[in-house]
Amino acid sequence: MSESDAPERGETTDRIMRATYCALCRHGYADLTMQDIADESDLSKAALHYHYESKAALLESFLEFLLDSFRERVDAVESDGPRERLGALVELLFEPPGGDADAEFRTAMLELKAQAPYAPALRERLAEFDAYLRGELTTTLERAAETGLLRAEVSPETAAEFVVTVSSGAHTRRVALDRETTAAESALRDYVDDLFVEEAAA
Amino acid sequence: MSESDAPERGETTDRIMRATYCALCRHGYADLTMQDIADESDLSKAALHYHYESKAALLESFLEFLLDSFRERVDAVESDGPRERLGALVELLFEPPGGDADAEFRTAMLELKAQAPYAPALRERLAEFDAYLRGELTTTLERAAETGLLRAEVSPETAAEFVVTVSSGAHTRRVALDRETTAAESALRDYVDDLFVEEAAA
Repeated sequence: MSESDAPERGETTDRIMRATYCALCRHGYADLTMQDIADESDLSKAALHYHYESKAALLESFLEFLLDSFRERVDAVESDGPRERLGALVELLFEPPGGDADAEFRTAMLELKAQAPYAPALRERLAEFDAYLRGELTTTLERAAETGLLRAEVSPETAAEFVVTVSSGAHTRRVALDRETTAAESALRDYVDDLFVEEAAA
Repeated sequence: MSESDAPERGETTDRIMRATYCALCRHGYADLTMQDIADESDLSKAALHYHYESKAALLESFLEFLLDSFRERVDAVESDGPRERLGALVELLFEPPGGDADAEFRTAMLELKAQAPYAPALRERLAEFDAYLRGELTTTLERAAETGLLRAEVSPETAAEFVVTVSSGAHTRRVALDRETTAAESALRDYVDDLFVEEAAA
């Protein structure tokens, strides 16, 4: 893909990604076919195959698309310091790309995670997402540590891994048990607060 | 099922439960058939259907069986006080029933969680498991609070929910990303330690 044809390619890609999203919501991951995705767009199945050689390749691109969208939202975070940035990142973790109404999409994503052991390329994309998140959190926590905001015994890497784990568990329980994530989110905020040295004003 | 035929029924049930475990490991949840389960036992498919009217009913019983096994292991925990009991419970959370080698089983369990939105009876069993865990953790934390061991601001219920969420996330990431749970387990131990007031000897 050259830069010069990016606009047109980008438009078709966006349409296919939106169609994939809708098809995942409607059919779930396990039973999804290229025809299902074509049916959600104004493209033919043949046109889809022109862009993606297989369903697996399309879903791989779809995960990349989700990661890119997430990256954009992370980049758009404006915050005054590492503590505020951390709060904003935690907030993003509980705002899945599809918005609140998309229980079906969250279910499809969990199905996809359960299939990852059989699909190395998908697992790689999921791992990339996870590593990106941990990286952003670790960097932010390291910045906090450098300016003396973190408690001395806190390891930025360990704390970052913990935050990602809580977010993953909250989403799994939401799908499996229909359990609201609000309690987990609020406990996670308390956990993150406790990483910081107490403020003089406290 | 009357109590009087429990021993014999119990033996057959055990054989079916073991066969279900093996069949889930070999075939995963999505493609599992009653024949697959029969193939892992010395029972015919007809005999299976005599005990369970459908695959869904059998899997429901299988989840009950897992919950019972977990309950037995929790009951067997011998600990000197609430703090030690909490440590033992956290340890159990990271020791899945099938032992360490059963990556396939863990994958099947995550598949099953992803299917829960379509299978109310399975979701109910998963919710029962989750509630049992939260209950045990909450009770233990409440005992700690009563004896003045917990920091004043700690809510036993919120902390219990958090511990269950971390455990769920660690297991999801283990399946999806093949990520070891050791870091999450160790961070969770630190979190639990921090719920307690600092010891005089510290």
